[in-house]
Amino acid sequence: MKKFINNVDDLLEDSLQGFVKAHSDIIQLNEQPHFIQRNDPTPSGKVALISGGGSGHEPLHTGFVGKGMLDAACPGQVFTSPTPDQMMLAAESVNNEGGVLFIVKNYAGDVMNFEIASEMLDCPCETVLIDDDVSLPETHSTGRRGVAGTLIIEKIVGAAAENGMNLTECKALGNRVNKVTASMGVALNCCTVPALGKPTFELDNDKIEMGVGIHGERGHDTIDLINATQIVEIIANAIHDDLNPKKGQKALLHINGLGATPLMELYLIYNLAVQYWEDRGIEICRSLVGNYTTSLDMTGCSITLTLLDDEMIELWDAPVNTANLRWGS
Amino acid sequence: MKKFINNVDDLLEDSLQGFVKAHSDIIQLNEQPHFIQRNDPTPSGKVALISGGGSGHEPLHTGFVGKGMLDAACPGQVFTSPTPDQMMLAAESVNNEGGVLFIVKNYAGDVMNFEIASEMLDCPCETVLIDDDVSLPETHSTGRRGVAGTLIIEKIVGAAAENGMNLTECKALGNRVNKVTASMGVALNCCTVPALGKPTFELDNDKIEMGVGIHGERGHDTIDLINATQIVEIIANAIHDDLNPKKGQKALLHINGLGATPLMELYLIYNLAVQYWEDRGIEICRSLVGNYTTSLDMTGCSITLTLLDDEMIELWDAPVNTANLRWGS
Repeated sequence: MKKFINNVDDLLEDSLQGFVKAHSDIIQLNEQPHFIQRNDPTPSGKVALISGGGSGHEPLHTGFVGKGMLDAACPGQVFTSPTPDQMMLAAESVNNEGGVLFIVKNYAGDVMNFEIASEMLDCPCETVLIDDDVSLPETHSTGRRGVAGTLIIEKIVGAAAENGMNLTECKALGNRVNKVTASMGVALNCCTVPALGKPTFELDNDKIEMGVGIHGERGHDTIDLINATQIVEIIANAIHDDLNPKKGQKALLHINGLGATPLMELYLIYNLAVQYWEDRGIEICRSLVGNYTTSLDMTGCSITLTLLDDEMIELWDAPVNTANLRWGS
Repeated sequence: MKKFINNVDDLLEDSLQGFVKAHSDIIQLNEQPHFIQRNDPTPSGKVALISGGGSGHEPLHTGFVGKGMLDAACPGQVFTSPTPDQMMLAAESVNNEGGVLFIVKNYAGDVMNFEIASEMLDCPCETVLIDDDVSLPETHSTGRRGVAGTLIIEKIVGAAAENGMNLTECKALGNRVNKVTASMGVALNCCTVPALGKPTFELDNDKIEMGVGIHGERGHDTIDLINATQIVEIIANAIHDDLNPKKGQKALLHINGLGATPLMELYLIYNLAVQYWEDRGIEICRSLVGNYTTSLDMTGCSITLTLLDDEMIELWDAPVNTANLRWGS
């Protein structure tokens, strides 16, 4: 295994130390337990948004802490849930009379630990569960997974909270955006988890893996290598069937790199996906292309579509100032 | 070779079409010949900044076209210089009485083609040649290469041009920033050029390549795998010896991913590099960490240090609104 590390056990700590030094204008790191929070205190009465999950998906979630998005993020070890004490202390630290909204990707460990934290908290606390991954059926034993659509919910609800939306409304909005968000991923090659030291699965040079998640697990199908148009068609069909949008519907199209895919290829995928949906009368009016929800050094990408109404468009466009998503004033 | 493409020959065109669709609020694409330019015309009298080079380094340069940075960028095929007609037509399109400044990375093909364009242009035209790569000696037959420091010159001179600095002064500023900028790269694994279909060189599982450029060429040394602290020390020593900064000097530290390196590892490298220079009395007051000057899917990174004066800090902080670098109002 070749990686830029000193000790596998110190990777998260060493990386967080670098992250906080690079972005000390926006965020700070709480030690023991670890969480990243905004420098500027949560305004009184504003709902405090907190997310978290295993590391290895950077910039998700730590890179999205800041004005207009998350108030705090709790990083676990690589591909490992953070612990309830991280979430509780983060919540106690950033709650300022507006209550706390947890944004949780649907994985058993994350769900359990956020639940424990929310039961032990004294303040009002609600949870939005993200399950945008259409590669697993909704009838799957643990339900669908939360993947790259998560940041879209974080951005839209983050803007709403900044505007003064209350906890109940923020939760409802989060659920509403999650319902109209669908994603699916494909891998050309798997990632190497540092503690394991080798790829979590192997793919021959003429095979690709459809329907992968973000933790180095296998997808639902290993298929022969096909071209980009064919890949986009398989993924977009699954998303389109799930969301079933009407003609004239506006949408946000997010092409997410899983870690090792050149930007040139992500833009090529974006071009094909826009064509796919424009052919079906969908107006792609917002976009996001790049590495946002990664899976360490996995070669692959995911496509996410969110069906937008005017309120969501306004909230998506609202100013945001985080380490890895930044626009507006 | 597994990549998200349809035909190798169409990769650049397909990718540019996606890029322009994703960022049509900021930039537009000129076809035949290809160049990307800002939507809003260059203000009368403002120096027009143009860069370009082979593709495969995205977001450099197309991702840095927009207010506060480049007026246009000319993309060549993968790792291949753009042609003089691209540069000439881009210059004629964006020049608006302020003259044109070419920002050129020091590679024989780029230098020759930008020279031809500049000789054939009717308007005032100057060139800043970037050669920040300290892994080659200045006495090398073609001089040092231009690598990840390029975007720092583009950002600082871009802000100055926006403020009304004239052509002669912009060129002098560009040369001045180039002089105080030094970079060096390391690869853990090489990249696969699409037209070749396999890595341009092979590295054993226990070897890394020091002093790599951004075109899949070998570096100056293949060495045994060492840990991150040792890697940072070798690179930082070379940069420090080149720039020879005084104690108390302020600096910008840029950790650049070459394509396939997780953000966690880049922040770990950042942390070590900050420590290295703080131990030597250098104040790292600005930072940039992420994939900015890539080499397709190369696993590796580069470290760049720019010694800053107050003018440069102000220009670095000035608003910028491009696809891949965006801050301020």
